[in-house]
Amino acid sequence: MAKQPAPNSDLLPQGFLFSAVKAGIKASGKLDLAVAVAPAGANAAVMFTSNQVVAAPITVGRAHMLATGGRVRAVIVNAGNANCATGSNGIAACESSCTAAAAIFDCTVDEVFPSSTGIIGVPLPTEKLVAALPAVNAALGATEEHAALFARAIMTTDTRPKTAHASIEINGKTVRLYGFAKGAGMIHPQLVPPHATMLVYLFTDVGACAEELQAILETAVEPSFNSISIDGDTSTNDTVLMLSSGASGVTMPEVRAEFHAALGEICRSLAHQIVDDGEGVTHVVTLHITGARNPTEAKKVAKAIAHSPLCKTAWSSGDPNWGRLLAATGYSGVRFDVDKVSISIGPHMVFERGTRAANFDEAATHTTMMQREYTITIHLGQGDAECVFLTCDLTAEYVSINADYST
Amino acid sequence: MAKQPAPNSDLLPQGFLFSAVKAGIKASGKLDLAVAVAPAGANAAVMFTSNQVVAAPITVGRAHMLATGGRVRAVIVNAGNANCATGSNGIAACESSCTAAAAIFDCTVDEVFPSSTGIIGVPLPTEKLVAALPAVNAALGATEEHAALFARAIMTTDTRPKTAHASIEINGKTVRLYGFAKGAGMIHPQLVPPHATMLVYLFTDVGACAEELQAILETAVEPSFNSISIDGDTSTNDTVLMLSSGASGVTMPEVRAEFHAALGEICRSLAHQIVDDGEGVTHVVTLHITGARNPTEAKKVAKAIAHSPLCKTAWSSGDPNWGRLLAATGYSGVRFDVDKVSISIGPHMVFERGTRAANFDEAATHTTMMQREYTITIHLGQGDAECVFLTCDLTAEYVSINADYST
Repeated sequence: MAKQPAPNSDLLPQGFLFSAVKAGIKASGKLDLAVAVAPAGANAAVMFTSNQVVAAPITVGRAHMLATGGRVRAVIVNAGNANCATGSNGIAACESSCTAAAAIFDCTVDEVFPSSTGIIGVPLPTEKLVAALPAVNAALGATEEHAALFARAIMTTDTRPKTAHASIEINGKTVRLYGFAKGAGMIHPQLVPPHATMLVYLFTDVGACAEELQAILETAVEPSFNSISIDGDTSTNDTVLMLSSGASGVTMPEVRAEFHAALGEICRSLAHQIVDDGEGVTHVVTLHITGARNPTEAKKVAKAIAHSPLCKTAWSSGDPNWGRLLAATGYSGVRFDVDKVSISIGPHMVFERGTRAANFDEAATHTTMMQREYTITIHLGQGDAECVFLTCDLTAEYVSINADYST
Repeated sequence: MAKQPAPNSDLLPQGFLFSAVKAGIKASGKLDLAVAVAPAGANAAVMFTSNQVVAAPITVGRAHMLATGGRVRAVIVNAGNANCATGSNGIAACESSCTAAAAIFDCTVDEVFPSSTGIIGVPLPTEKLVAALPAVNAALGATEEHAALFARAIMTTDTRPKTAHASIEINGKTVRLYGFAKGAGMIHPQLVPPHATMLVYLFTDVGACAEELQAILETAVEPSFNSISIDGDTSTNDTVLMLSSGASGVTMPEVRAEFHAALGEICRSLAHQIVDDGEGVTHVVTLHITGARNPTEAKKVAKAIAHSPLCKTAWSSGDPNWGRLLAATGYSGVRFDVDKVSISIGPHMVFERGTRAANFDEAATHTTMMQREYTITIHLGQGDAECVFLTCDLTAEYVSINADYST
C-alpha cells in the first residue's frame, strides 16, 4: 500500500481512498475500473439481488464476506461487462482478478470485494482488468476529485454520476457517510440480505461491527432501493455494500439514531437519483398507496402500476387516463371494494365512490402531470397500511436505448 | 323480429343474424355498435376477466347469464366506451340499454348480453346506443358481409378485423363455428369461468346445453386466450362468449372430439391474430418453456419474459441479447439450477451449461430474429412440464399509440 488516507475532504469519511482508470473494458473507452480501498480494513454489510441467476462477482463476493465475517479492504468495480452467465470460467476470471488485487492492495483475497456491471454473457477480459490495477493503485487518493472519478467509472447507461453524503457532529467529533450509485436500466432491485444492475457503495467512518452494519443497512434498503422501479427488470448483479472504517473515533451506539436517519436520507437520495436518471425518463412519479390491509398489499398495488406499460406511457404525455391506474390496481392481485377506492393525481381527485370524481378537472390534472415530478395517491379503503414507491414513465427513448443494436 | 336467419353463407353457423351501425359513440365516427341475434335463442357459455375492477356490462352480463342459466338471444356490443368505473350510473346505463334491446329484439332483458370496449371512466352515451337499435335491427342478416360488419364494429385500436371459422361434416349434416375477436392493447387476458379488453364471440350451430358449452370453452381458452400477452395489462372488460343455436341438427355427443379440435383451432387462430395485430407490434414471439416441474412454473417463466421491457425491446431490433431472457427467467420466482438451463432462439442454441453456447452464432441468430415470427425455447431442466405462450415486441410505436394525448 502506498498512501494513507488524508482527511483532505470535508465530505469523505476518513479511512478510505478512491480512484478510477480506463481499463479498456467499456467499448466507449471511458473510465471503467473503480477502486475503493480501506488501508486499515473496514467492517462490511452487503445485500445482493434476489434473482436466481447471479453474476460471478455476486457468488465470489458472498463467499468472501462469509469467509471474513464481513471484513473488506478493497472494492474492485468494473463497468462494461457483467461477468454473468459466464459459467465456471466467469468465476475463475473473478477469482483471478481478486487474487491480483490482493497482491496490489496488500490484503488477503477474501478481503477483496468484486463487482461487475454491463452486458450479460460475454467473457470478462480479466487481463485488461488486471493490467490496469497498478495504475488504479497509483491514482488512489482521498479528495472529492478521487471520489468523483469512482462515481463516474461505475456508470453504464447513466447520464450522470450519483452521490450523496451526510455528516453527524457529536462531542467535537464528526461521523461522515458518503454513497455512490449507478442505474439506469434493468432497475427493479429486490435485494435480500447477503443478495440491480444497481450498484450502491456506502462508506462511513463510524465504528461498527459487521452485524450492526448489516441490521442498519437492511432497514435502510427496504424503503429506498427496494421501493423503486424503472422497468421492472430485476438484475442479476444488484449490490448494495456498506463499509465502515471506524476512523471517526465515534462508535455506533453513540450516534445510532442520527446515523440511521442520515443513512436513510442518503439511500433515499441515491434511489431518487437512480430513477430520475433512468433510461429515457421524462417524469418521476411517486406512488403513495394508502388504506391497505398491510404493507405487502400496498406494495403489490404500487408494483402493478409501476410495471404497467399503459400507465407508464400515459405519464409520458401527461395523459390523465386514471382508468389505467384503476385497471392495474384491479389486476394487482389485491382484493378491494372498488366503491371504497379513491385516486388523486397531485392535488386533484380523479376517482372516488366507484366513478369519476364529481369535480374531475382534466386540464388541471394534465398541468400537474406535465411537471417532471408529482405524486399519485391510491387510497384502497381497506385498512391503515401504506407504502411509498418511486417510479417513472416509459418513453420512446427507453425503447430506442434498449433496442439499439447493430450487427 | 324481422327476418329469420337464411342459410346464405357456407361459413356462418345457422340460427344467427349479424349487423352493425354507426351509433356515434366512437369519436372517429366509424362503426361502433355490433349486434348478433339468435331469433330462436341460443345456449351460452362465458368467461370474464379476473380483474377486480370490472366494467358495468360484465356485472350485468354475469347476472343475466345466472338468471337465464345460460340463454342468450341478443348480443349488443359497443366500441368507443368501456362503461367501466362509471359507478351505479354505469350499471343503470347498461341495464337501460338492455331493456331497450329486449323490446327491439323481442326477448326478455336477461336474454340480452351486453359488451363494451373503449375508454375507461367516461359515461356511456346510452341515448346514442338506444337510438341506433332500430337501425341495427333493420340491418340484420346472415351473409358474410353482415358478419364482416360485426367484426369491424367491435374494433378499437385494432388495424384489421379478426375472424376464424371451421366446419365439421357428419352424417350428411354440417356443424359450423365462427369466431370474432378484437384487441389490441391492454392485452393479457386472465379469464376465469363466468369473467381484455379482449372481446371474443364464438357462434356455432351444434346442439349443446350451457354446461357442455362452458366445459368445452374453458378447456379451449387456457392454451389460447389465457396464453397470450401484448403488454401485460389485464383489462377490466375481457369477455369470451360462445353461443350455440342447435340449428345444425347435430348434438355435441355426436361430434365432441371434432368440435373440441375445431374450437381449439379457432381460439388459437384468433389469439394469434390478436397478438399479430397488437399495438405497434413488429415481431410475434412464441415462448416455448420446457423442462419445468409443472405447467404453472412453465407459465410463470413465460410471463416474466413476455412482460420484460428489456426482452421485448431487444426483440424489436432482433438483438440476440439472450442475457435478458436469462435474467427474466431468474426473477420469475421459479427455482432452477442455471447450469441445467438451455436457451435457443429459432434453431440457434445461445446458452447452455451456465454459459454462452460454444457455437453461438450471433449473426445467424440476428437473422432469425429479423423474421416477423420465431420461437424462443427455454429449457429449465427441472422436469417434464411445458407451456407455449404467444407474445410480441415492444416498439416506439406502442409508446406513441398509448402516449397519444392532446388536451
